[in-house]
Amino acid sequence: MTFECPTPVHEDEVVLLGHGAGGRLTAELLERLVLPAVDGGSGPLEDAALLPGYRELVVSTDSFVVSPLFFPGGDIGSLAVHGTVNDLAMRGARPLALSVSLIIEEGLPLSELRAVLASLGKAAQDAGVPVVTGDTKVVGRGAADRLFINTTGIGQRHGSLHPSAALARPGDAVLLSGPVGLHGMTVLSAREGLGFESDIASDTRPMHRLVSALVPLGADVHVLRDPTRGGLAAALNEIARDSSVAVEIDESAVPVPTAVASACDLMGFDPLVVANEGCLVAFVAAAAADDALAALRSVPEGASAVRIGEVLPEGEPGRVTLHTLVGARRIVDMPLGELLPRIC
Amino acid sequence: MTFECPTPVHEDEVVLLGHGAGGRLTAELLERLVLPAVDGGSGPLEDAALLPGYRELVVSTDSFVVSPLFFPGGDIGSLAVHGTVNDLAMRGARPLALSVSLIIEEGLPLSELRAVLASLGKAAQDAGVPVVTGDTKVVGRGAADRLFINTTGIGQRHGSLHPSAALARPGDAVLLSGPVGLHGMTVLSAREGLGFESDIASDTRPMHRLVSALVPLGADVHVLRDPTRGGLAAALNEIARDSSVAVEIDESAVPVPTAVASACDLMGFDPLVVANEGCLVAFVAAAAADDALAALRSVPEGASAVRIGEVLPEGEPGRVTLHTLVGARRIVDMPLGELLPRIC
Repeated sequence: MTFECPTPVHEDEVVLLGHGAGGRLTAELLERLVLPAVDGGSGPLEDAALLPGYRELVVSTDSFVVSPLFFPGGDIGSLAVHGTVNDLAMRGARPLALSVSLIIEEGLPLSELRAVLASLGKAAQDAGVPVVTGDTKVVGRGAADRLFINTTGIGQRHGSLHPSAALARPGDAVLLSGPVGLHGMTVLSAREGLGFESDIASDTRPMHRLVSALVPLGADVHVLRDPTRGGLAAALNEIARDSSVAVEIDESAVPVPTAVASACDLMGFDPLVVANEGCLVAFVAAAAADDALAALRSVPEGASAVRIGEVLPEGEPGRVTLHTLVGARRIVDMPLGELLPRIC
Repeated sequence: MTFECPTPVHEDEVVLLGHGAGGRLTAELLERLVLPAVDGGSGPLEDAALLPGYRELVVSTDSFVVSPLFFPGGDIGSLAVHGTVNDLAMRGARPLALSVSLIIEEGLPLSELRAVLASLGKAAQDAGVPVVTGDTKVVGRGAADRLFINTTGIGQRHGSLHPSAALARPGDAVLLSGPVGLHGMTVLSAREGLGFESDIASDTRPMHRLVSALVPLGADVHVLRDPTRGGLAAALNEIARDSSVAVEIDESAVPVPTAVASACDLMGFDPLVVANEGCLVAFVAAAAADDALAALRSVPEGASAVRIGEVLPEGEPGRVTLHTLVGARRIVDMPLGELLPRIC
């Protein structure tokens, strides 16, 4: 007979909501569990991956679990198209084909499913991308929350654009194509009935046309990223880390709609960590910054594009700082990630 | 003031479990709701779709919701790889790349997630396919059942193989690569604690090597299909419909393991409608049937391949009949689909 120590059990050895929120916990889960299992982990995590043997093709996948299914400005159907089209666009690609896979909870009214699918189909048509294949699964009541949608997209890269989260360089200008915080605060407000949802709407939209506008700038476009889960703070932190650079942005330059600012104040949120679904961050060579800004503004979805900061000539690699309204500097941390579950 | 009739409400106007079971209800949902919304619906529904502009590339997507997560012979991780690798293989393609998207219920033990991912990674490695991109979402307790996995695969077609569910021709031989019913009865038994799970194991395995073995037969291979949800009955009905032919199979020729037959007897199931994850149906030109059978048998996973029937020279298009053990003939219907939810 032998005595054995029981295997130590950590209270936190289960998956937490924050593991899916796009912040530090998500990164930990990926780095410790997911990537080692699938032989990943070399190189930066991009929004879309290159297809082996076809360097012009990129692939991106996303499962959408947003709650509620319908919110001002969109629904899970349009969001599922935009999210994947945008992940492809952030690798400089136009969308070639989408797959759509549904997980439906038994009892979902067919009228709601029909409305979601109509919206999804319209969004795909507007983005000029065919839905080429799909799958439908149904699970019992209580085994899912109404409807989840996975979309996977294949895109073809514009020959001259090869943006990557690892390509930011000292001196780069940091551009933002539109205001932040709309999607996250709209969904949160609609879900919790906070009342702000009458004043704001999600910014969900396809951004491949914004990216097309940047094509003439070619290799001067170093990084493209859509600040979804974890917001602008997460996107900038990932870029600073993957490029080993220090990034500074001006608080006064970041456009935050008044209703978003009010909602964030009330809830105690930093608008920089709130998810967006219709704006992008571009890091471009300083000399090309004005042209890039003009290119973004030439497209309706980039009409309010602004320059929000720069890559510092030197500074601690991976650090993101905010030059605040009162002239101080504060560190913009990678959000831990528990604030806003099921926002996309 | 006007009086309006209330919109008629049908009791069945919600999604039912059977809508996801791969039978007639699934087909109805696809034809009435999904395909019209996404501009699909022309041509047969294949296991994988051609990528626009790249005729050698095919795409397939599947969401896996199997319950329980672990079962004799496999788990949701290996199943998620095999299912998509096999859908690509059924279009005559070898797998180039996989995406993996997780929807995790808060509270799932990390040890289980780790085990599933290790199994998924090993299955991908065994099939020689890299996982190139992924996504992780977490939903609250009760908003999902432990873990769902979507895999989407991109495959490259063997130049000489262009199988399609629409290409069956009168006189074709119908081949089956192995016994039927193992996966469905194993998962059902494990879930319900029926006790059969000690005698049987899922047949989940990748089948791209079986398909490679058929490459020398080229255009004589008319149809390849893996009889998953809805079993052999659904696969044969889909082929008969899409090719407008009549198919007849011999009951005595269809291999049903004893334990599967016992379990089916007890539960009142027809083994022909039970899901498989490791055998395929091939329709080949009669003159090539012996060579095709030899090719299938040359690979370990096809060692027990048999000829089970033929496409009748004439007969009602879309009809599948079974020549029974007692010499009678009965129609093999498309299963309605409510029998075995969450089998994959």
